[in-house]
Amino acid sequence: MTTASGHTSAIRAKKVMGTTVKDPAGTSIGHIEDVVLDKQSNEIMFAVVSFGGFLGIGEKFHPIPWTALNYAPNEDAYVVNYTKEQLEAAPADSISELIRDNGAAYRGKSYDYYGIDRTW
Amino acid sequence: MTTASGHTSAIRAKKVMGTTVKDPAGTSIGHIEDVVLDKQSNEIMFAVVSFGGFLGIGEKFHPIPWTALNYAPNEDAYVVNYTKEQLEAAPADSISELIRDNGAAYRGKSYDYYGIDRTW
Repeated sequence: MTTASGHTSAIRAKKVMGTTVKDPAGTSIGHIEDVVLDKQSNEIMFAVVSFGGFLGIGEKFHPIPWTALNYAPNEDAYVVNYTKEQLEAAPADSISELIRDNGAAYRGKSYDYYGIDRTW
Repeated sequence: MTTASGHTSAIRAKKVMGTTVKDPAGTSIGHIEDVVLDKQSNEIMFAVVSFGGFLGIGEKFHPIPWTALNYAPNEDAYVVNYTKEQLEAAPADSISELIRDNGAAYRGKSYDYYGIDRTW
């Protein structure tokens, strides 16, 4: 559907990657590194977000449910409604670990941690 | 799920883009240009495939249902079970037109043309 601002909800993956992620206060805290797709269905499994500079955890990447990222078209950024403390304690790992065994383990952990209902 | 070959079904969008697309005979006929995602749900709307060199139609891109692309890990390519004639007559346009109005029109046309059941 079209959002109130008229922004389209159809988004090219190429434009998603590299987009800034902000906290609710508007501070840039990271960026979208990649999006993990399920080849066997039409499901987006999760977004892979890097908070490296913000959290100082080096190579760790956060699997975050796609629907937990709220696009703010005026800022060209995704806003997550989580505090720094919540993100620091969230599931994170190398990307190869995130997608190991079809990404099932980290998808489950991520949805549970952020309290997003599972859609699969 | 894991496929018989052990290939994971969790795929990073960055690795999808640029991947070769082949016809059933194994001939390279194009590549994945992008993947269009729905921001309001977890749905992959469609893949955007370029058959430019094969079909000689310049800047036109084909919206193809994600599940109609069969990944062949041994070839690192996606195989489409359509003939050249089917693809030449398939819905195609510039990418900006494909995603206009949330991509609804071209998603519908694509699913109908390729005979894939709608999931939305």
